[in-house]
Amino acid sequence: MALRVVGVDPGLTRCGLAVVDVESDRRATLVDVMVIGTSADTSLDERLLRISRGIEAWLDRYSPDALAVERVFSHTNVSTVMGTAQASGIVIAEAAKRGIAVALHTPTEVKAAVTGSGRADKDQVGYMVAKILRLDAPPTPADAADAAALAITHGWRGAAPGSHASGTANGGSSGLTPAQRAWAQAEAAARKGAARGGRATRGPHR
Amino acid sequence: MALRVVGVDPGLTRCGLAVVDVESDRRATLVDVMVIGTSADTSLDERLLRISRGIEAWLDRYSPDALAVERVFSHTNVSTVMGTAQASGIVIAEAAKRGIAVALHTPTEVKAAVTGSGRADKDQVGYMVAKILRLDAPPTPADAADAAALAITHGWRGAAPGSHASGTANGGSSGLTPAQRAWAQAEAAARKGAARGGRATRGPHR
Repeated sequence: MALRVVGVDPGLTRCGLAVVDVESDRRATLVDVMVIGTSADTSLDERLLRISRGIEAWLDRYSPDALAVERVFSHTNVSTVMGTAQASGIVIAEAAKRGIAVALHTPTEVKAAVTGSGRADKDQVGYMVAKILRLDAPPTPADAADAAALAITHGWRGAAPGSHASGTANGGSSGLTPAQRAWAQAEAAARKGAARGGRATRGPHR
Repeated sequence: MALRVVGVDPGLTRCGLAVVDVESDRRATLVDVMVIGTSADTSLDERLLRISRGIEAWLDRYSPDALAVERVFSHTNVSTVMGTAQASGIVIAEAAKRGIAVALHTPTEVKAAVTGSGRADKDQVGYMVAKILRLDAPPTPADAADAAALAITHGWRGAAPGSHASGTANGGSSGLTPAQRAWAQAEAAARKGAARGGRATRGPHR
């Protein structure tokens, strides 16, 4: 049975939500994706209310087993960090109210899990999210793709405790991690596409 | 009719709540005060859930007209600011869900409103909160006194728009602000107490 994970990339202007079902064999399927957008012209309480209503409806609709949210650091993006933290607090509390397990993952953990590198850029993350979820293109906007990446990261951890326990995708000499395997497959597919003279896909930026 | 204001000093470890009724003549009465405490040993989702349940019960019990919460800045107290922001987001959203007007006040505005000085220390704020609310001692812990100060600040603004509109208690040459009047009365009372040889009260630290 699949583990249903809601991933949340919290933010006041754009709060990305994704629902991903992760099978025990790590196969991941995107169920839905959404961005709750609020305008800076709106009062803070109205913006936070909209985010609260949005996540409530989302959790009630999809009844996930777990919610994965980006761990917010105070030293990143000082201008937006307060709103991001306020949104994340609301999301976490609404999940907790419903008895949904909450996990926090750092951006580095997420990048490492889905691309194999903790220093991957947005394009790499979006590209790998699309590959992992077998989509033609990454979910847009980037907040939605990041939410999906969070859900995948958490689902993979849950599916096989230990293999991703360190939060890095560096599995050592014993073999490729799922992310690395997916990456290798994606690279191979991109090469094959280019060899066939097909439309150039957006390849990995290594 | 009194304006009922809930003041909230948000925090993850201690979230101070106060209910203050403010009359149109600015007379302020403490209705209740509480601190929601959560332990750092508890998971973040459990802590935020407890804060959420606490503020929900508080708002449902006291049905305030307005909620005043401290405006959190990202550059203050970096180690605790994320938890503080998460707690404040939850509090604001729960008020907004109930149609309760939400106002944000900076610590400087609050200090200025209740003591007459934006640079007042904790003791001064607590002392003035006790005087304004006609209590024998400030509510404890300090988070509760700060929550009461927030509620007073907002209630006074609401009672007479304009006189506190700038967020400072410096009313210019036209007369004393309510805070300055209360301060002057408190100083006079302290002097009288000392003259009577009564037990020394904690006087203003100017």
